[in-house]
Amino acid sequence: MAANRVKGTYDVLPSESYKWVALETKIREILSLYNLKEIRTPMMEYSNVFHRDSEGSDMVTKETYDFVDRSNRALTLRPEGTAGVIRSYVENKLYASQELEKVYYIGPNFRYERPGKGRYRQFSQFGVEAIGTVDPALDAEMIILAYDFIKRLGLKGVKVRVNTLGDQESRDRYQEALVKHFTPHIHELCEDCKNRIDKNPLRILDCKIDYKHESVINAPTPLDLLNDASRAYFDEVKSHLEMCGIDYVIAPKLVRGLDYYSHTVFEIEADIKGFGAANVLGGGGRYQKLVSELGGPDLGGIGFAFGMERLLMALEANHIELNEDVEVDCFVITFSKELKKIGTKILYDLRQENFVSDMNYTAKSFKGQLKQALRFNSKYLIILGDEEYARGVVGIKDTKTEIQEEIKIENITAYIKKKMEK
Amino acid sequence: MAANRVKGTYDVLPSESYKWVALETKIREILSLYNLKEIRTPMMEYSNVFHRDSEGSDMVTKETYDFVDRSNRALTLRPEGTAGVIRSYVENKLYASQELEKVYYIGPNFRYERPGKGRYRQFSQFGVEAIGTVDPALDAEMIILAYDFIKRLGLKGVKVRVNTLGDQESRDRYQEALVKHFTPHIHELCEDCKNRIDKNPLRILDCKIDYKHESVINAPTPLDLLNDASRAYFDEVKSHLEMCGIDYVIAPKLVRGLDYYSHTVFEIEADIKGFGAANVLGGGGRYQKLVSELGGPDLGGIGFAFGMERLLMALEANHIELNEDVEVDCFVITFSKELKKIGTKILYDLRQENFVSDMNYTAKSFKGQLKQALRFNSKYLIILGDEEYARGVVGIKDTKTEIQEEIKIENITAYIKKKMEK
Repeated sequence: MAANRVKGTYDVLPSESYKWVALETKIREILSLYNLKEIRTPMMEYSNVFHRDSEGSDMVTKETYDFVDRSNRALTLRPEGTAGVIRSYVENKLYASQELEKVYYIGPNFRYERPGKGRYRQFSQFGVEAIGTVDPALDAEMIILAYDFIKRLGLKGVKVRVNTLGDQESRDRYQEALVKHFTPHIHELCEDCKNRIDKNPLRILDCKIDYKHESVINAPTPLDLLNDASRAYFDEVKSHLEMCGIDYVIAPKLVRGLDYYSHTVFEIEADIKGFGAANVLGGGGRYQKLVSELGGPDLGGIGFAFGMERLLMALEANHIELNEDVEVDCFVITFSKELKKIGTKILYDLRQENFVSDMNYTAKSFKGQLKQALRFNSKYLIILGDEEYARGVVGIKDTKTEIQEEIKIENITAYIKKKMEK
Repeated sequence: MAANRVKGTYDVLPSESYKWVALETKIREILSLYNLKEIRTPMMEYSNVFHRDSEGSDMVTKETYDFVDRSNRALTLRPEGTAGVIRSYVENKLYASQELEKVYYIGPNFRYERPGKGRYRQFSQFGVEAIGTVDPALDAEMIILAYDFIKRLGLKGVKVRVNTLGDQESRDRYQEALVKHFTPHIHELCEDCKNRIDKNPLRILDCKIDYKHESVINAPTPLDLLNDASRAYFDEVKSHLEMCGIDYVIAPKLVRGLDYYSHTVFEIEADIKGFGAANVLGGGGRYQKLVSELGGPDLGGIGFAFGMERLLMALEANHIELNEDVEVDCFVITFSKELKKIGTKILYDLRQENFVSDMNYTAKSFKGQLKQALRFNSKYLIILGDEEYARGVVGIKDTKTEIQEEIKIENITAYIKKKMEK
């Protein structure tokens, strides 16, 4: 049997994984500065956590992995991070201990999409949710965090695109205006859009088929229909951004299809070689109904998410290395079965002093072992031959200077310690 | 709708997650010293990766989450880490670039078990696989690594229990001996054991129902039936362990049910308050058929795994903290909407200098904000009132010394920098 990975999934290979760890470490570092704590929810939830009655987004109805467990419960692999976090926030009554809960998550999500370049059926996201408080200063903090995060990765041309959908009243007005606007043209639009006009007309603006249609280009924007309170809220958000010199533009057509957003929505873009116009790395927005829909009190939240694969591609394209892979400090070269035992002891002692150490476990020539050591970028070779062992010594070679010294076996660790000044 | 987490799963809450990150960081640190690299495989595989014809273990047939995707492919959520890693090793031809691949994984697995104390339907493991080489020195390295890892966590009474099943010939002999031994008693054993005698008689020794039956207690051990080569292999493993002073005992009845093991099997135990006799933290063994069963060449491997939940419980029981949660350096207290903008800027500047900083986003009294700041263990309070702002200053209070100073707004970051000597 030749086994393959599941279509649309991928392996992070041993030679690549340090890049993931480096990015995750960076995320934790930066998010900590904003006093955010990590939350981890299960990979699967009862299906109604994602398939809510009010949920009109295309993704949630079409692209989830749904199945029943052995007791016939309907489960879904999580297609995104927010709903599970809110379910956990409500179920664990996190609102009881403080007004505002600021959390982040990192991990896999699952969508049954057509696989493509950078589009996988198991993909990873990190995201942030600030739940419990409605305040423009908080919206600004989240935007600043997303912007600051991308800047700190070392990407250039970082810019925020921001818009508002306003409060429920403004949103309702806007939806009405959209229905009115699109109705005369609806027969010219795609099948999906014909559905969307009733369920969620905002999604028409994000349509990948109709985006060049004149009616889409000339559609009204949410800004045209804001009430005064919503306009004031948005002005506050902007003035906070200006206070910190954040590079932002108003994007009047940005609505971010998911139908649970209200007030602020935003995206972060950067100049990425080879990404062309598709330079949006992530985004998010404020939501009001999600917490109560999942059984909690009527509390609003704001969040954003970034795709991990896309971030890694962006770093790669711009030749940014957040960290280097661990290299081997000491590589032991031995030749006989008996000497391998001495090798095992040498490794044990070196590792006790926190030196990255290894030796060869296959029967290989000196040349073969040397090649292996150099492939690991080993700093020191510890060469243990029969003749040396008889005299109680090893040869230690510095692979950079190529200088080799003879050291007593009992002094190896002390010698390496001194050399590396650890 | 009140949503609950899926039965048998759990949330890692914001107040607890730092313990997970600390353990994972420790794992990566220690495993790096052994020159191991991380590998990440998907949460799901085609079902035949786990349900192999030869696989006689109870777990794999009864307890997996199996489902079909929208194209009717049979998928399984991974119930353990090894099979996916081997699938990846084979599919990515990792054997082509070097004789020995040493990797580790950390992450969730899924089993439809009856939930219980410390037993979950989504649980996490970290594990190690060294694939490609059969050498007693490598078996010893893996045992030493598992032992060293648990010691470095700070647990006491760490001990290795080790045994061997021998090579295929020895194993076949042993299975025959078991069948012969159990056949006269089989009608006295449980239904599962009646099945096991044909499929995988070794599993009878691990039976949770029959473990007190005389025939189980008096069953032959693999050591009784080893051929000379297998005995010599095991002697080599032991002498490597002795070389490093590893605290080990021979456990003649240890067979570790999974039917793919051959040669060395082992477990690591430690003294854990409240765990009583159930003090085994993890274990593993050598396998020979797995790589070829998954379509690869005839190469052996050795691996082990530890349960993350169990490790965290053990640390908790022994009052070991690997790391502390991040605390807030500076907490800004303000009162008006206008001053919040200044607060946003102060936070922005502090965070740019990598100080963990936060402020209050809800309308709260001074007392309420103070309480919040102290709950975060904030080191400094930055108090920004209207009167102070008019004079261009803030009050900065050291929460430890309770000393408060008046500082110019433009000097806040420099002041904190000096105080914290970062």
